[in-house]
Amino acid sequence: MALVYVLNGPNLNMLGVRETSVYGTIDLAGIEKLVHARAERLGMTAEFRQTNHEGVLLDWVHESHARGAVGMVINPGALTHTSIALHDAIKAISLPVIELHLSNVFARESFRHHSWVSPAAKGVICGFGPKGYELALEALASSVSAQ
Amino acid sequence: MALVYVLNGPNLNMLGVRETSVYGTIDLAGIEKLVHARAERLGMTAEFRQTNHEGVLLDWVHESHARGAVGMVINPGALTHTSIALHDAIKAISLPVIELHLSNVFARESFRHHSWVSPAAKGVICGFGPKGYELALEALASSVSAQ
Amino acid sequence: MALVYVLNGPNLNMLGVRETSVYGTIDLAGIEKLVHARAERLGMTAEFRQTNHEGVLLDWVHESHARGAVGMVINPGALTHTSIALHDAIKAISLPVIELHLSNVFARESFRHHSWVSPAAKGVICGFGPKGYELALEALASSVSAQ
Amino acid sequence: MALVYVLNGPNLNMLGVRETSVYGTIDLAGIEKLVHARAERLGMTAEFRQTNHEGVLLDWVHESHARGAVGMVINPGALTHTSIALHDAIKAISLPVIELHLSNVFARESFRHHSWVSPAAKGVICGFGPKGYELALEALASSVSAQ
Amino acid sequence: MALVYVLNGPNLNMLGVRETSVYGTIDLAGIEKLVHARAERLGMTAEFRQTNHEGVLLDWVHESHARGAVGMVINPGALTHTSIALHDAIKAISLPVIELHLSNVFARESFRHHSWVSPAAKGVICGFGPKGYELALEALASSVSAQ
Amino acid sequence: MALVYVLNGPNLNMLGVRETSVYGTIDLAGIEKLVHARAERLGMTAEFRQTNHEGVLLDWVHESHARGAVGMVINPGALTHTSIALHDAIKAISLPVIELHLSNVFARESFRHHSWVSPAAKGVICGFGPKGYELALEALASSVSAQ
Amino acid sequence: MALVYVLNGPNLNMLGVRETSVYGTIDLAGIEKLVHARAERLGMTAEFRQTNHEGVLLDWVHESHARGAVGMVINPGALTHTSIALHDAIKAISLPVIELHLSNVFARESFRHHSWVSPAAKGVICGFGPKGYELALEALASSVSAQ
Amino acid sequence: MALVYVLNGPNLNMLGVRETSVYGTIDLAGIEKLVHARAERLGMTAEFRQTNHEGVLLDWVHESHARGAVGMVINPGALTHTSIALHDAIKAISLPVIELHLSNVFARESFRHHSWVSPAAKGVICGFGPKGYELALEALASSVSAQ
Amino acid sequence: MALVYVLNGPNLNMLGVRETSVYGTIDLAGIEKLVHARAERLGMTAEFRQTNHEGVLLDWVHESHARGAVGMVINPGALTHTSIALHDAIKAISLPVIELHLSNVFARESFRHHSWVSPAAKGVICGFGPKGYELALEALASSVSAQ
Amino acid sequence: MALVYVLNGPNLNMLGVRETSVYGTIDLAGIEKLVHARAERLGMTAEFRQTNHEGVLLDWVHESHARGAVGMVINPGALTHTSIALHDAIKAISLPVIELHLSNVFARESFRHHSWVSPAAKGVICGFGPKGYELALEALASSVSAQ
Amino acid sequence: MALVYVLNGPNLNMLGVRETSVYGTIDLAGIEKLVHARAERLGMTAEFRQTNHEGVLLDWVHESHARGAVGMVINPGALTHTSIALHDAIKAISLPVIELHLSNVFARESFRHHSWVSPAAKGVICGFGPKGYELALEALASSVSAQ
Amino acid sequence: MALVYVLNGPNLNMLGVRETSVYGTIDLAGIEKLVHARAERLGMTAEFRQTNHEGVLLDWVHESHARGAVGMVINPGALTHTSIALHDAIKAISLPVIELHLSNVFARESFRHHSWVSPAAKGVICGFGPKGYELALEALASSVSAQ
Repeated sequence: MALVYVLNGPNLNMLGVRETSVYGTIDLAGIEKLVHARAERLGMTAEFRQTNHEGVLLDWVHESHARGAVGMVINPGALTHTSIALHDAIKAISLPVIELHLSNVFARESFRHHSWVSPAAKGVICGFGPKGYELALEALASSVSAQ
Repeated sequence: MALVYVLNGPNLNMLGVRETSVYGTIDLAGIEKLVHARAERLGMTAEFRQTNHEGVLLDWVHESHARGAVGMVINPGALTHTSIALHDAIKAISLPVIELHLSNVFARESFRHHSWVSPAAKGVICGFGPKGYELALEALASSVSAQ
Repeated sequence: MALVYVLNGPNLNMLGVRETSVYGTIDLAGIEKLVHARAERLGMTAEFRQTNHEGVLLDWVHESHARGAVGMVINPGALTHTSIALHDAIKAISLPVIELHLSNVFARESFRHHSWVSPAAKGVICGFGPKGYELALEALASSVSAQ
Repeated sequence: MALVYVLNGPNLNMLGVRETSVYGTIDLAGIEKLVHARAERLGMTAEFRQTNHEGVLLDWVHESHARGAVGMVINPGALTHTSIALHDAIKAISLPVIELHLSNVFARESFRHHSWVSPAAKGVICGFGPKGYELALEALASSVSAQ
Repeated sequence: MALVYVLNGPNLNMLGVRETSVYGTIDLAGIEKLVHARAERLGMTAEFRQTNHEGVLLDWVHESHARGAVGMVINPGALTHTSIALHDAIKAISLPVIELHLSNVFARESFRHHSWVSPAAKGVICGFGPKGYELALEALASSVSAQ
Repeated sequence: MALVYVLNGPNLNMLGVRETSVYGTIDLAGIEKLVHARAERLGMTAEFRQTNHEGVLLDWVHESHARGAVGMVINPGALTHTSIALHDAIKAISLPVIELHLSNVFARESFRHHSWVSPAAKGVICGFGPKGYELALEALASSVSAQ
Repeated sequence: MALVYVLNGPNLNMLGVRETSVYGTIDLAGIEKLVHARAERLGMTAEFRQTNHEGVLLDWVHESHARGAVGMVINPGALTHTSIALHDAIKAISLPVIELHLSNVFARESFRHHSWVSPAAKGVICGFGPKGYELALEALASSVSAQ
Repeated sequence: MALVYVLNGPNLNMLGVRETSVYGTIDLAGIEKLVHARAERLGMTAEFRQTNHEGVLLDWVHESHARGAVGMVINPGALTHTSIALHDAIKAISLPVIELHLSNVFARESFRHHSWVSPAAKGVICGFGPKGYELALEALASSVSAQ
Repeated sequence: MALVYVLNGPNLNMLGVRETSVYGTIDLAGIEKLVHARAERLGMTAEFRQTNHEGVLLDWVHESHARGAVGMVINPGALTHTSIALHDAIKAISLPVIELHLSNVFARESFRHHSWVSPAAKGVICGFGPKGYELALEALASSVSAQ
Repeated sequence: MALVYVLNGPNLNMLGVRETSVYGTIDLAGIEKLVHARAERLGMTAEFRQTNHEGVLLDWVHESHARGAVGMVINPGALTHTSIALHDAIKAISLPVIELHLSNVFARESFRHHSWVSPAAKGVICGFGPKGYELALEALASSVSAQ
Repeated sequence: MALVYVLNGPNLNMLGVRETSVYGTIDLAGIEKLVHARAERLGMTAEFRQTNHEGVLLDWVHESHARGAVGMVINPGALTHTSIALHDAIKAISLPVIELHLSNVFARESFRHHSWVSPAAKGVICGFGPKGYELALEALASSVSAQ
Repeated sequence: MALVYVLNGPNLNMLGVRETSVYGTIDLAGIEKLVHARAERLGMTAEFRQTNHEGVLLDWVHESHARGAVGMVINPGALTHTSIALHDAIKAISLPVIELHLSNVFARESFRHHSWVSPAAKGVICGFGPKGYELALEALASSVSAQ
């Protein structure tokens, strides 16, 4: 089965614990279940991870390439707005990468409107909460099968 | 069946005719078919339209509210970047509105990075070509059923 | 009786229907009544209209000149912030034009602080709700009689 | 009778003396007469003052609150563009405050387009010369009676 | 005979009526005569039109492509500075398009210095009044014959 | 006993009267008591004053130098953001000056993020309400004894 | 005893070793002693740590929440100016967090004037060297006891 | 003898006392002597004053006009960079006004490079210490005699 | 016969030698021939020159005035974007000056979008290669005969 | 006798010929006479020159150092605003250099407000026409004798 | 033998694997060999490392100081543009540090033009591929021997 | 032997004479010797020149192309930051050009951080004093032999 990476950046481990008015009450384990279920239906295996360390995220992006993954969904958290290294890492691998945010970042503070990841990604999905992960997987499946 | 509006702005009538390297070879009629098929599967009826006139687009947004639509998918074309009136129109109705772009606007010219529609929308999907319309409908269905 | 144009731009037809916390509960028909009553008391006839189309608004501005109006009150809605064509149209006629906003635009989002209409107008009134239309008519009457 | 403050900032004592092409030939005493007449017709008493001192203006704003005024008209002169302290003072009292300018500031130098007072005010009137004071009083009367 | 479109945007119908110190005393009908005469001498047929509606202008640009025109001269009026949709429409057709302004826009207000049309056009001519239309037609003829 | 100046700028006389959600319910007299108590414990005498006049504040800064004060705590109110003269006055005396704000200015409007006083001060304390005055006195005592 | 976290970011391990003209001659161990002494006097236990890794700092912020700390003092070093993830982490926990800097950052290079931490913090203390840690602990104790 | 005003703004009373490396060791009384001596030689009487209050400075500018002065030399101190009211006051009188600074403001911090006074003044002299007052008086005498 | 100057700035001597994809294969001698031919047909004599030295270009602009030329066509090369001295020189002579560029500068790097020459020129022509010189001469002839 | 250089930059040779409303009717030869007369009275010899070439101006600045001049007056014309090389040349010699402008550059277009020369100069004099050269020489004499 | 650190930041481990058109086909192991060979010829021992973790890079910079290295070559990858912590770390050690980039960053995207490392470094070398490492070592050797 | 041009711009003739704390004590003749020696060792002949004239520098760049040089080292002095003409000249020739600065321009004033030459150059070397010329020659030799 085709391997896809689903990576989550800083503070997403706090999901469902705090600021639930912004991010909802589901926690990351709940999202992981949704991801595995949808991935299976789409004939894909999902590697689902979270880290607060930019360096670890970069290592994982490189690893996805080394392990022959066919695509990636990434919710980079606040690194979206600050990590040019993440931009470069995504450019450095040739996989379709989908940028995902739980909230509609464009309806929030202006410093969340710019993403270093977007110009290196295939596409962007934001504002749909956990459902967005499922949409991203379907977009990925569609994208991969279209190649 | 729940009614959803799927609105398209300026120049999208030229789809499939020109600049196919950016926007792909499918034309708007082809996308309309995809939309009706997916909407039907999701138990929704789609009102699918295109116009080059900002004023007409505003009239249609108001009309969707008057006719009791449950949501909207909108690909505003270049009005995305210039129409505060569209921002206000979407704010003025209470429906969940999903902003959609065929291409990844964030990987193109910088003047395409700012959207007046995004802060008034529920969420944004871009970069997945015609497939994006289907994802938007699913997001809409999910959003409506969650209310 | 002296003819004055009272023109309203995009989304003002939604007045009283939605976002009543910002714009109040009176609808545009209610405002029109106020306008006709005050205009009559000031010895003027008011041509009161609304459109969502920038092009129609421009046509009306030109028409006011052709029909010999003595002044204009204009609430350009969101076109205030985007339409240089409206700026040019007002410059192209020689009538005193009063820019009007129901809400205090300077206490709202920063993109509502700049107006293309203001530098071409005689004066600006904002923040007084429907009452502002009456004040604008009085200002117009005073301005016309002072010429 | 309801008490309203009508305050004037720096250089307005020079009115009618110099730069009459911009500000007109009426002097501040002339305006004061217009103000008292209109206030009386509206059933209000006007406290009309002018100062070149920002500190004095702040003292007066505080005083209006202490003396139970029901509203204020303020023409802050050049302090409009530089005094955050004035912004804070107006915020600190709970009265409706109307910002007024004799000339249309938006048709003049760009440094006159930004006002620190506007976001703290109820509304803004500019461009109508001395007539603007009368309109402001009527707006104030209307605003007070609507509470 | 080769077909060329000569399109005029908002407020150009007011030409010769007002602001004659900026735009001269000739009206649009006078310019149309010059255009037909020069076009004929160059062996071309000119479709000469004016509209205040951005949407109509977009429709006409698309139409020029559908009717097999060999080129276009466009004086977009104030839409020059605000319409990204016009930029996209010109990009969407493959004809040589010449941007034209009666006045030297670079010697006027700074907001007239930026054009959304220029980067999509073949070239720009401005500052020569009605004569500019003739120069544009000759440039077009030269450009077409060089292909 | 060592003399310290504790100066308060515009609108701080309104403390405890209005906007209590931002500034708390204690008034300036209450703060003065805290200041004298803490100063005494630290072996210092505090000169505690408030004014709405920038010029008076400047005079007092100069006076502190003339009277041989060993340090200053200053809450400049809105002058923080506008008074370069205050910056220069603090530079002109050689005392350690501590800038103090009751609220966390960095969590408020962006125009409150820049301070002309900070680069001329020894240090900054903000966000701790009246307690901040006590901390500032202790910092001052520590700073003076370290010289 | 109430638990407080005292966290230090990148390069603070170099304290007392280098650039002593800016940061003083005391090293981090010396500061830790001051912190434990003052915390004890205030009836609190301090968890004092330093790291050069943003990810580790984020983990510790989360940990403070998990372990039931009552507050935090954080000297984020250069991450102050670059880490939106730190901003989000502080927002994600509900503790009062005090931002601390040894030097007066506002008197140094302009890139040190903006802090991503400040808008998420309760308050800011800077410019008092090691003494600032003590003031921060007192502010924290005062803040906690006031809840 | 012709009357000239020589006005000095905030902090200039501290001249010769502090920051002598920037402003020199002569005090304001010393400069006043130079001014009177040179004025006398030029056949003029100088009214020499200093204030820390913007409002007082404005009053004096108005007074110079009322008393029939033939010109003014003004060293506005830090008000140079913040007082639009001073700009307006100078515009409001018709005298030639010369802006003067002891130091070369353009070789200092960038916030000292912009002057609100310069565009309203006849000319600017800076960088020559007390000597600059003498040059300004000569320039004034030359300017007055040339009228 | 009327004398016109046709001046070319830095690097235009390299025309036809390098970067032919941008500037075409014709060299400057070829353009000179076109210029002389067209000038003759229009009853004018052209003084055609090129230099890499800004100072020489300024000397020539002054010379055109001294020799009684009736107009000028100038292709300033990169000096377009950097030479305020050229702006001043054109302002200093009273001839109609036409700015010309071979390529459409507005479709190239953003630093080529601003011209110091345009606001001092009668009009601008760009994007038509060598043909532009001919159009400029015709515009000049038309402009001169219209005086 | 002490040698001083008085250097003039681009377009100053056109003085008195054109734009006399801005620069006056005296030509450069007239100014040279004033300069020699005043220099003689001050016991100095003036080397008075003009060039349109930045490179020549740089050579002359170096030459003044080589020939042992004691100071320089420079009116750099438009190079004021564009020549960092001139800034560096003045820094490279150790003479007091006085920047001079005939007109008050701060009352003209905003691009004339920034000077690359000012931060390298001893002082600035502008707005006094030819008289400014005399004032500059006196300032220079005073500055030299004070060393 | 003198010890030098040669440190490489994020994504440089992907060298030679991907984006070879930008970075060339040699991999990091190949560069390490070049470095050791050249270092040896220059009488130096090179510690050659790569990491994707900013924190690790900071630790290594501190370590170089602790181990008595005489200098450092650093290719910080994308951290060049985002890490103020790296700037501070380099400032905190007293070694000569040479910033190196394989590609000419100034010929790439504008966000690669600013470096936080450059102002803290001794010098910069970029654009020469692996050869740059050798040049940097020679520069370091020359710099060390010159001390 | 292969010919290389080594060109130096404005003020570099003052090297070793003044500002030796920034640029060192070696003069340009000393650098020329280093250049010839290193060039010879690398099997190249160096044409070493300096000028204060931008136009002359442009002529030399063109000349290098005409004479068949294989590469160029250029230290453009202050023209680095102002000459777009130099950018274009380097683009117009096809040689590898190395930009060189004696000092680390990125550690100096911000206006020295932008270079018009860099995007047109092969690479950049700065901060190593005269040694940089030698490194540039080796880089050039390496670059030429790699073609």
